[in-house]
Amino acid sequence: MTAFPILFIASMANTLISYQELFDFTERIFTAIGCSDKDANLATVSLLSADLRGVDSHGVARLIGYVRLWEAGRANTKPNIKTIHETPSTAVVDGDSGLGLVVAPHAMQIAIDKAMQVGTGWVSVQNSNHFGIAAQHAMMGLKHDIIGIALTNASALVAPTFSKERLLGTNPICVSIPSGDEPPFVADLATTTAANGKLEILQRNSEAAPEGWIQDKDGNSATDAHALKSGGALLPLGGDKLHGSHKGYALGAVVDIFSAVLSGANYGPWVPPFPAYVPMPENMPGKGIGHFFGAMRIDAFRPASDFKKDMDQWIRRFRNAEPVNPSQPVLIPGDPERLTEAERSQHGIPLVGPVVKDLLGLAERFNVPFPVKNF
Amino acid sequence: MTAFPILFIASMANTLISYQELFDFTERIFTAIGCSDKDANLATVSLLSADLRGVDSHGVARLIGYVRLWEAGRANTKPNIKTIHETPSTAVVDGDSGLGLVVAPHAMQIAIDKAMQVGTGWVSVQNSNHFGIAAQHAMMGLKHDIIGIALTNASALVAPTFSKERLLGTNPICVSIPSGDEPPFVADLATTTAANGKLEILQRNSEAAPEGWIQDKDGNSATDAHALKSGGALLPLGGDKLHGSHKGYALGAVVDIFSAVLSGANYGPWVPPFPAYVPMPENMPGKGIGHFFGAMRIDAFRPASDFKKDMDQWIRRFRNAEPVNPSQPVLIPGDPERLTEAERSQHGIPLVGPVVKDLLGLAERFNVPFPVKNF
Repeated sequence: MTAFPILFIASMANTLISYQELFDFTERIFTAIGCSDKDANLATVSLLSADLRGVDSHGVARLIGYVRLWEAGRANTKPNIKTIHETPSTAVVDGDSGLGLVVAPHAMQIAIDKAMQVGTGWVSVQNSNHFGIAAQHAMMGLKHDIIGIALTNASALVAPTFSKERLLGTNPICVSIPSGDEPPFVADLATTTAANGKLEILQRNSEAAPEGWIQDKDGNSATDAHALKSGGALLPLGGDKLHGSHKGYALGAVVDIFSAVLSGANYGPWVPPFPAYVPMPENMPGKGIGHFFGAMRIDAFRPASDFKKDMDQWIRRFRNAEPVNPSQPVLIPGDPERLTEAERSQHGIPLVGPVVKDLLGLAERFNVPFPVKNF
Repeated sequence: MTAFPILFIASMANTLISYQELFDFTERIFTAIGCSDKDANLATVSLLSADLRGVDSHGVARLIGYVRLWEAGRANTKPNIKTIHETPSTAVVDGDSGLGLVVAPHAMQIAIDKAMQVGTGWVSVQNSNHFGIAAQHAMMGLKHDIIGIALTNASALVAPTFSKERLLGTNPICVSIPSGDEPPFVADLATTTAANGKLEILQRNSEAAPEGWIQDKDGNSATDAHALKSGGALLPLGGDKLHGSHKGYALGAVVDIFSAVLSGANYGPWVPPFPAYVPMPENMPGKGIGHFFGAMRIDAFRPASDFKKDMDQWIRRFRNAEPVNPSQPVLIPGDPERLTEAERSQHGIPLVGPVVKDLLGLAERFNVPFPVKNF
């Protein structure tokens, strides 16, 4: 439910590009930095799912960031991804410093395979990198009538309740649940009040941030959207103690522990940063960043058809709830992203100027033609 | 981290009663309404864990509520609790309308047993009643080096984002994580901005509720703590859309679906109410209320000693974070409840006047002596 307002994005966009054109370009860049054909395809599917679903901060805008991680020797484009420990329902995967965009679907597939065997599968991942949007991986279960769960930690931008220091990432939780005739329920949420991408939009437009989103370097509530760049922090969901920020903090902490303490990855303030120019933390206790995936086969609990009938009724009852404002109906988690995906699949993906500039730079450097010329 | 301020409660309390005295009394009441000795013991342990941990709204204050459910024929004190479906890592349990205080530990034990066999265990429960505090059940895993998860749905008091109607319960999430030398990490949180128990304290003192806790019957933000009684609703964690309430709504929805759609219990607005005088919803789609339990064996992922070493480092790093205010250090989820438990185990459990009155009524009715006479 973190969709960006489509019209707003579109109005800032220099151009629209078709999904297929953007896909072909992106895939060629991943190939150019050493990915196998299969991995380049997988990485592109993972990355662009964010652009399709309207989570622009996590999509092709980050392509240059992945290239820089590879350049800096922090991302391995030829990883040997291994299962280093397992039981019938669990595994720990070593991503071998691979792109999270490739490691994540590999690990989620293991969770699904285990669910097929013993009802559920749970995979914790060490030694990975950023995996794009969680929903893309969790939703792999849908076609198997499997509830999918995807968590990841990320470098520290968030201050726990009462803390001046940033110790947690925006650590998202995604839960994807199959339904019958209705579209699936897909909740994908950062455990902060607002995702960092929303803050970036305010920064770009020099607008103030609402109370409860960020604090300044002294730990005071702040509305300057740039406070994060001068030692401030994002706030856990809830904003402050009075409004339940200790709950957002606890949820972000659970994501960190399941993703990294359970796998042997880095946790808390030791999670490696995404920008390749930021130095790595000192005394890192683990390997790379961590993810956690879960797969639960519906019919390990009850017949899938019974479940889906109830799930459809659940969705319809909530969608048809009496709204506060008749012009804004109650939404089901996943609705905004699904509508954006339908729109963008048909009409193309809007790219803002700075992203186009980055992509043109990559096009020139790797001698891969960029499909849109008329800016 | 939902502890009540101890001193505040104590100042309202008419008396202190020792845990053991309160235990013996409560156990005799459960026996008097038909529980076997074993179930009466189990129910008492479950119920009073709330009083020990400072979650007064869910403890012995509710004893009379359970008695009334039994009286109304809505709670079965001689349940035949059955596993009605299972795989190596999953089960669905039919609680036979039993007290959730008894059904929950039964189901959590099944999850633990399955984790011992195949690494993890996941149990969804139908046909149950309120189970007290989630932490009590999730923490059953600690002594086995197992991460415990406990969720439950509850009758609808919460309005989803944009909804005028109440469609979700306060649907808590508890995750209990073993550590080494440090005390365990125990996050136990309602998926609302504030737990209903906190609102009840404001109502009792005729104090205003903070913005973001509740809305009135028209869906407007409200500060009248009594708004809930005139058609208003609790708000999901986040409070409003701008502050992420769609995330609290999504989390509460996941709890509802895992607990009830996966088990065949009632969900959303059809969850049976706790107060026995409130009529049952019409056209209920399932049986009773639903819970969901998870157990993950640490060493199904990595050696427990390695995990605990990292978990201790995690806890120490967060506890020692630089605080915004030096007088308020950063807390680890579970800290406030653990401190309250230490205090109350030693000095007794404070009971407020109305609760003592209810307990004296039960004492008289069931001819069970109440241990404290001097009010």
